[in-house]
Amino acid sequence: METKLKGRHFITEQDWSVEELETLFSLAADLKAAKKAGRTTPLLDGKTLYMIFFDASTRTRNSFETGMTQLGGHAIFLSPDKMQISHGENARDTANVLSRYGEGIAIRHCAYGEGNAYLREVAANSRVPVLNMQCDIYHPCQILADYMTIREKFGKTRGLKLGVAWTSAPNYVRPLSVPQSLILMMPRFGLDVTLAYPPEFKLMPQIEEQARANAQSAGTKFEITHRFEDAFENADVVIPKSWGPLVTTQDKTEGLRLIEKYPAWRCDTKHMALGKKHILYMHPLPADRGREVTDEVIDGPHSVVYDEAENRLHVQKALMALTM
Amino acid sequence: METKLKGRHFITEQDWSVEELETLFSLAADLKAAKKAGRTTPLLDGKTLYMIFFDASTRTRNSFETGMTQLGGHAIFLSPDKMQISHGENARDTANVLSRYGEGIAIRHCAYGEGNAYLREVAANSRVPVLNMQCDIYHPCQILADYMTIREKFGKTRGLKLGVAWTSAPNYVRPLSVPQSLILMMPRFGLDVTLAYPPEFKLMPQIEEQARANAQSAGTKFEITHRFEDAFENADVVIPKSWGPLVTTQDKTEGLRLIEKYPAWRCDTKHMALGKKHILYMHPLPADRGREVTDEVIDGPHSVVYDEAENRLHVQKALMALTM
Amino acid sequence: METKLKGRHFITEQDWSVEELETLFSLAADLKAAKKAGRTTPLLDGKTLYMIFFDASTRTRNSFETGMTQLGGHAIFLSPDKMQISHGENARDTANVLSRYGEGIAIRHCAYGEGNAYLREVAANSRVPVLNMQCDIYHPCQILADYMTIREKFGKTRGLKLGVAWTSAPNYVRPLSVPQSLILMMPRFGLDVTLAYPPEFKLMPQIEEQARANAQSAGTKFEITHRFEDAFENADVVIPKSWGPLVTTQDKTEGLRLIEKYPAWRCDTKHMALGKKHILYMHPLPADRGREVTDEVIDGPHSVVYDEAENRLHVQKALMALTM
Repeated sequence: METKLKGRHFITEQDWSVEELETLFSLAADLKAAKKAGRTTPLLDGKTLYMIFFDASTRTRNSFETGMTQLGGHAIFLSPDKMQISHGENARDTANVLSRYGEGIAIRHCAYGEGNAYLREVAANSRVPVLNMQCDIYHPCQILADYMTIREKFGKTRGLKLGVAWTSAPNYVRPLSVPQSLILMMPRFGLDVTLAYPPEFKLMPQIEEQARANAQSAGTKFEITHRFEDAFENADVVIPKSWGPLVTTQDKTEGLRLIEKYPAWRCDTKHMALGKKHILYMHPLPADRGREVTDEVIDGPHSVVYDEAENRLHVQKALMALTM
Repeated sequence: METKLKGRHFITEQDWSVEELETLFSLAADLKAAKKAGRTTPLLDGKTLYMIFFDASTRTRNSFETGMTQLGGHAIFLSPDKMQISHGENARDTANVLSRYGEGIAIRHCAYGEGNAYLREVAANSRVPVLNMQCDIYHPCQILADYMTIREKFGKTRGLKLGVAWTSAPNYVRPLSVPQSLILMMPRFGLDVTLAYPPEFKLMPQIEEQARANAQSAGTKFEITHRFEDAFENADVVIPKSWGPLVTTQDKTEGLRLIEKYPAWRCDTKHMALGKKHILYMHPLPADRGREVTDEVIDGPHSVVYDEAENRLHVQKALMALTM
Repeated sequence: METKLKGRHFITEQDWSVEELETLFSLAADLKAAKKAGRTTPLLDGKTLYMIFFDASTRTRNSFETGMTQLGGHAIFLSPDKMQISHGENARDTANVLSRYGEGIAIRHCAYGEGNAYLREVAANSRVPVLNMQCDIYHPCQILADYMTIREKFGKTRGLKLGVAWTSAPNYVRPLSVPQSLILMMPRFGLDVTLAYPPEFKLMPQIEEQARANAQSAGTKFEITHRFEDAFENADVVIPKSWGPLVTTQDKTEGLRLIEKYPAWRCDTKHMALGKKHILYMHPLPADRGREVTDEVIDGPHSVVYDEAENRLHVQKALMALTM
């Protein structure tokens, strides 16, 4: 196994080999077992992670910060409005300074066309690993947790069908990062992926292309469809989730109008019935209850959303322990 | 002594027996002595408490967060505006997710008619204890500190007279939680309580009734009066403190008008002179100096407000160590 | 060496003797070496520092908070808008309460005519040391880091010429604290200081006078000039940095107008060429790139701004370990 991960950035899971990611999953399982058994795991004693949030968060902030505490270190929550970033400090200065003090820099920055570029610029100037807490293109920590959850439930993942479906959720144009990281990573780990969205909600072309290439290399299937039900039929796992029509338009008003055009793209028990008997419902949360999914499904027997949320903690602890 | 408190919620002290609360006071005294002696007490090594604040705080946040550090763990300060709660996340999701990561959830939510209900809903969905940092109905941690302070000063508390008096403080309609928790808990621990307020400032009827029942069970006195001086006459301890006329009106403008109607309800040295020679002045802080109380009293020889504030730390450390 | 520093306030370096400051630098060097060697230094195990920020910060907050983690304790970031300070709590109450809970109170408060007075009032009421994270008059932690950097680069500092020059940076009237602490402390440690500013940008008269007295006692030079180049000619170190014309006017609009009057006061390679061959460029950051300094200089071979920023961590860890 590859274990020379100390100091490595984690901006997209695409930059890590399957072997490297397996090392991470293996440590995540160990850390999860240690926590259940009440054993402490001070692997990062006295170390500091900076968490810079350009966007709001519950799970991400709390799982990273709790994870650092459980590893014996500390995570600092930074909001750009309280920092000199609001006085015009550039990424180069932020990276150089923080990487002299602590051992890791985690960033959430979802602004379309800006987030990933900012992470890359910080990484280029940092002596310590930069970890992606979600950007405009990728949300790799979420997808690590999703994969860990699926493997826990099924034992092995080769040949499982995963449906990734767009859903209609008003008020807020959500980033593309979750479906994009899903279609990139899942085929590499043996899952066959069906991605369903209305025509205006395509993902970034280079990401769809990369996903196809990943599936081909791994000998798995990846298909795109414009019918909601396709994601559910015969599926082992479904992840129905809203995102914005950002590739089609970046006008917010127009974006919200397009989202309202497809109110029927909402996951309910009828859709769940199209899948295999053991079908799992997953969602990164927060879900727009009533619009993305009915309470009956998200609070029902197929839903594993809280197991999925919990695994954020374990995969991120492994990520930090390996890189920092 | 009852010590099976691990995992217990603490939403109101009313839910805990006198024996259970005595266990807590006993541990609080031990932890206070350990701190003075410079001994570390890592009872919650690597554990995390989430503190969700819907309202501002100094003492509460700092005493909980410092307490967790002194117990070897970490407390995370969460403000709903920086969380997905502002994207409509419900209490069920918040509770389920946080209780998978950490070991306790503390909440301050004082909105009248909402706060306690929110705490109860989080508690119903949480695997870990929910601790009340003040809601619209109760402020149990404050009253634990108050009681610890009174016992430290007098040795025993049976037969002491406690005066709880409303005071006039403009600009801000304060919650009912402090006087309500005072009249509920103090009679159970042997104190005779006189509650004084102008007619429009009555407390919630069911709380006043419960206080009466508590006093009767404990063989102590509980009386309500509309004369400020009654709270002071022959008292061992007085806690003069503003609250809003929330049972009478929830209109803010009308509430502020009613508060201004009674400017003479302000604690000064003349009132203090009505009490016993050793009378103690207490206040949970921050006090509205000049309106609720004169500087002469709050900074004077009878005032124990800083001892009282300090004890927040010790009782809360005991609470966390017992439940988490 | 003087080592009875436990419990001492650090509001200005002027209150500490050279011997006391040498003790601090010596410990800072030890802690820096320990960090590079990967040795933990839990000198403040379980202890808490409160950091009250009336103004935004990156380096200061992160270096203090990371420093406390590395010393085994915890620092709490407090913003007055989330505290009861916004409900009118006075400095006396804040000081008394926090100093009952934790072991140190650090404050940044730069409002002209208010900041230092607030720190002094907290200190007068605190049982634990008060540390200055920058006020309207002093920024002693920055200058400790500056001096540590200069000594690391040159070995000894007697006889070096330090140029402190005003620069023109629009949009924001910066405090006087950096140049004032520089001219006060550097002459005490053997440096000859040339201070250059346009006539409207003089520093507080009593500070300039104290700087002169310090230089005379130490047998070093201190001169004031109104020519930008004077700070650079034959200099070993230059610190060109913007500040507001606060002694001349406290009207913000007029202040910004005066700043715009001297656009040529900007550090570029021509100015750097006036100094010694080994001349160092320093700046406390964030610099207004393009206005205070060209990228060529701040990112060039003479710049040690990141070493300087890093030393904030080491001197502050020493400060906390000695006083708390």
